[in-house]
Formats: sequence, C-alpha cells, structure tokens
Amino acid sequence: MSPFTPDHAESIAHHGEKSLLLLIRDWLGESTPPSPGGMGDDCAVLPPSASPARLITTDSVVLDRHFTAETPPRLVGRKLLARSLSDIAAMGGIPTQAVIAGLLPAGTRVSWLRECLGGIAETASPAGVHIVGGDLAESSSDLALNLTLLGTGNTFLLRTGGLPGDVIGVTGPLGGSLLQGRHLSFIPRLGEGRLLASIPGVHACIDISDGLATDLLNLLPAECSAFLQPQALPLHPDADAAASRSGRSPLAHALNDGEDHELLFLASADAWNPIVEAFLKAGFAAPHAIGSLGRRGAHPLLNGPTGEPFPHTSGYDHFA
Amino acid sequence: MSPFTPDHAESIAHHGEKSLLLLIRDWLGESTPPSPGGMGDDCAVLPPSASPARLITTDSVVLDRHFTAETPPRLVGRKLLARSLSDIAAMGGIPTQAVIAGLLPAGTRVSWLRECLGGIAETASPAGVHIVGGDLAESSSDLALNLTLLGTGNTFLLRTGGLPGDVIGVTGPLGGSLLQGRHLSFIPRLGEGRLLASIPGVHACIDISDGLATDLLNLLPAECSAFLQPQALPLHPDADAAASRSGRSPLAHALNDGEDHELLFLASADAWNPIVEAFLKAGFAAPHAIGSLGRRGAHPLLNGPTGEPFPHTSGYDHFA
Repeated sequence: MSPFTPDHAESIAHHGEKSLLLLIRDWLGESTPPSPGGMGDDCAVLPPSASPARLITTDSVVLDRHFTAETPPRLVGRKLLARSLSDIAAMGGIPTQAVIAGLLPAGTRVSWLRECLGGIAETASPAGVHIVGGDLAESSSDLALNLTLLGTGNTFLLRTGGLPGDVIGVTGPLGGSLLQGRHLSFIPRLGEGRLLASIPGVHACIDISDGLATDLLNLLPAECSAFLQPQALPLHPDADAAASRSGRSPLAHALNDGEDHELLFLASADAWNPIVEAFLKAGFAAPHAIGSLGRRGAHPLLNGPTGEPFPHTSGYDHFA
Repeated sequence: MSPFTPDHAESIAHHGEKSLLLLIRDWLGESTPPSPGGMGDDCAVLPPSASPARLITTDSVVLDRHFTAETPPRLVGRKLLARSLSDIAAMGGIPTQAVIAGLLPAGTRVSWLRECLGGIAETASPAGVHIVGGDLAESSSDLALNLTLLGTGNTFLLRTGGLPGDVIGVTGPLGGSLLQGRHLSFIPRLGEGRLLASIPGVHACIDISDGLATDLLNLLPAECSAFLQPQALPLHPDADAAASRSGRSPLAHALNDGEDHELLFLASADAWNPIVEAFLKAGFAAPHAIGSLGRRGAHPLLNGPTGEPFPHTSGYDHFA
C-alpha cells in the first residue's frame, strides 16, 4: 500500500486536524490513556508514581508552514522551544528538559543549523531548560524540527474543570500574530501560568495557539456556552495592522488568528480580584476579563449583552 | 539566509553524523549538560531529583531512508517504537510513555496512517508503553515520524565504564539486517538489558544500530583497544544471505551492517559465567563472548590472536 493517494477522500487532507486526532486516539486504542494522562490537553500529565509529577509535550516547526526561508534561523529555534514552553505554561508547570529531532535535507546550510540551535539554546537557558538529546534524519526536501519538552510541578491546570458562572480571562492582547510576525517573538507566559495554578478558584487554562474562538471551545463544559463581551476583548496593535491589510475587522483577527500564545483561563467570579492583585504584585500585566460561562444555548460562543451567536469564528486548522 | 546551500562544503552533508553531533553539542553550549545527563549515550538520564530516575530518547523513521513505499505500514510503526525500545534496553531501563510527532504530506493515505499507528499500538502494549501525546504537521513531500520515549529504572548501564581486561559480549547474531528486512522485525532486548543492569561486573552497554565496528568504538575507554576473535562473532543467517547478494564476506556484514539492535556490552572476565547462567535461567539465549579489551595499540579494533587491524570496518553514517 503506497503511503500516498491521489483521492482526496482517502487522504488525511479530507479530515480536519481535530477529527484526525480523534481518529488517531481511536486507532491507538488501549495503548493511549484518557486525558490528562494521554492526549487531549496542552501536555500529558505522567502518573503520580513519578514524584514530582511530570508533564510532556511535543511540537514541530516546518519550513514554509511555521516559518519561511527568510525567517532568521535564531527566531526559528526560538519559536520551536517557545511553543512548547507555552504548553507547559498553560498547565502551570515548570519546564525542565527537552530533546530535539531534526529532519534536514543534505543541502541544509551548516550556519543555518548553528544559528537555529543557538536560538534554541538562548531561549532554553533563561527558562531553566536543558537540551538533553536529539536525533538527526535526512529528508529529500522538507526541513522540519521537532522538540519534546518535559516539565514538572505540584498542581496542574487542565482544560477541563470550568463551571457555569466562571469568568473567562486572558493574559494579554490578541490578534495579528501571524501576519505581523509576533509568532516569532511572543513571550511564553510561564510565570503567569504558575501563578494561576497556585490560586484557588482558577479552574481551567489553555494557551491560545489556534485562535481564541477555537481554543475557548476546548475549555467549555458540555452544559455551558461562553458569553463574550466584544468590547472587553483586548486587541493587540497587530490586530489593527493586520485588519488594515486584510480588510477584515480587528475583532475578527483577535478571535481567529492563531499563535497568540496568551493564556486563556476560567476562574470563579470571586477569585477574579485576587487574581488581578496577584498578577500586579508579581509584576505581570493585569489579565483581562472577556466574558463568562452561562447555560449552553444553541451556540457555544455567544455575544454577551444581546445573546447573538458570535460572528467571525473559525479558527486555524492545520489540515483543513 | 536561505536554509539551503548549493555549496557542499557549507552544507551538513559535508560533515559525518558524528561530527555534526559534536558541533551541535558545541553550539548548544551550556544549555546541554554533559553525558549521561545530556547527549552522548543511548538515552539521557534525567536528574535524580526525579525518583525513580527517568530516561529519555528520541528517534525518527523517514520514507525512503528507513522504510519504503512498499513497507507494510504496521511494520513502519513497529520499527519506529522498537528502535527507541532498543535504546531503553541498552541502558537496562523500563520503557513507560511515548509521544509521536508526524510530518505528513496532505496526500497521505488515512488507511496507511491508521495501520502505522496500529503497528505502534500493538508494539507498545506488550512493552507496557503508553502513547500519551503527539503532534501532526504538514510537509510538502517528505513523510517522517518521530517518537520520544521515556523510561524508568533504578540503575542504568552507560556507554562509559569499560575497563582493560573486560570481556566483549553480544546478545545475538549479527549482519544482513537491512538487506534482508530484519530491521523491520527485530526484537528489542529489553529483558536482557534489565538483566545485564542488575548483574555486578557488567560495566557498559550499547545497542548495535550503526554496526558492531562503529558502535564498539563508543564503548572503548581511551586507553583500550578491542581484541576481537573473528571466529567467535555470531553470524546471522541474514549475513550469509546478504553476502551472497553483495559479494562481500558474511563477517564484513556482521561487522558493518546497521540495525542489528542486539546489545553489545562489556563485563569483567569473572562476571562472564554468572552472566551466561543468569541469561539461561531467565530463558534468554546465551550471549556470545567475542573478544576482550586490551591496552590501546595503533588501531582501536584488533584481530585477536594475530593483533592485526580488523579488516572491513566502516560503519553506517547517516549523513556521510
């Protein structure tokens, strides 16, 4: 059986990434445990027999998908590690060690690889991450790097755990990351994540990688819709810049652009003021309350005061 | 700076894999700790603050490098996991969890991916491995899968630790794996590795992935040469079959072919009989003593009784 097919209906492109991941979980059967011990969250949480408990997450960057031939290689390396750091941040964990796997054509420039690894190293050191191993394999034409990151901690924030009435919070302004290049320079919210994990009343957290509208769905309990207040959504200046190039609204960019890597979290209403105080005391920017969870209506994302379905909500899907 | 160069001298193909890995360790600088906490062994050993200590290793399989379009996809998945299981075996560890990263063209056949993951799952379950996460990214044309495997244990065998006078042992017959297809069906020597790690007097171990002649060099202390007894080398029937196709000798195949995935180990001479007894008692095939370590001569690999340099020794190098 050839690995490839000209028939779209038989190819993985026929499935969205999310449906493909559900299929994969099914195919793996009993060899993959339920979340958070397996797939389905930002990181998998390894069994408590390991003390302290450990986190694991894996992510890739691919030429012409996540960066271009013009991207400075230090920023490619930085992005590779920062994406996984953001997954650890979303769980409230502390990153510890990483391994890197490179898939490189034989004609890859040594100085490009050196700069890329330099970018990984200079991102790893301040985050306290050790690069402990790796693998190199030769490709025909694609250039890709994969990084698997481990983390530790005592208590972790999962995607599940939200309750009706929870406030929806976000750690920073959104939109325009990919169009304006912020996807290469974002700061993983490690300190904010650890702080959130330490505050009673914070119920769930995710990092915004596929766009607010998509990632918020991953936090919603089955019985809840998210009532968003459009005017409360913090718009990044990049969202305005992107809007002036795309002709879409800054709000649409803030809702749907991927790779913001801010933390999106749910917390009980009476925890909100202590959260803001703790953020300011720690020297972090105050988080933004952008809505709350209410009883599930016909639509999962509703426009706050009017109860209308939220417009412009179609997140980034890697294979659709 | 383009990632690619037409100038061979500036490309990674100009370096062998080993020299490239040394460069990478240099580029990563202080972000990569010394072995066994970092690169340089079959697995990295994570710090003892994690109890029990943990192992980590990462490996990839690439279409047209490690398998072909004709390889049954179940065997591709099996090989991906089995290679990393063999790395855990070489340390005497117990495999625990894995994450998988796929780099797939959009035209990848869903049923191919399903069968491949089925092959991973059916290899994982009997080994006690849980698949806890993964990542999918789209490539233009290359198809590759990467797997990072964690392991646990109390005491580990490293590549370092050999002493003059040590017996050189190997767990099974060698040669012809790639040419005859055994690289798709080899059995990782997990039980044998754990047993070796539990026996006092076993000093060092590696799994034979690049060929005996290459991997044995990784076990040699600076002051030692390996005195091999050619007639003691266990030849796999595949080595004979490969020799009849290649015109080279079965011995040359046993020395230089990659992907045998038998364990190669060093042990004090007085530990040899207890090792053989322990193997037989555990139901494993008796290991083969193939030589011993003596004082370093002009050549690292010497032909036992005569002291001549060993012929036909050039292992597999992924980028040379």
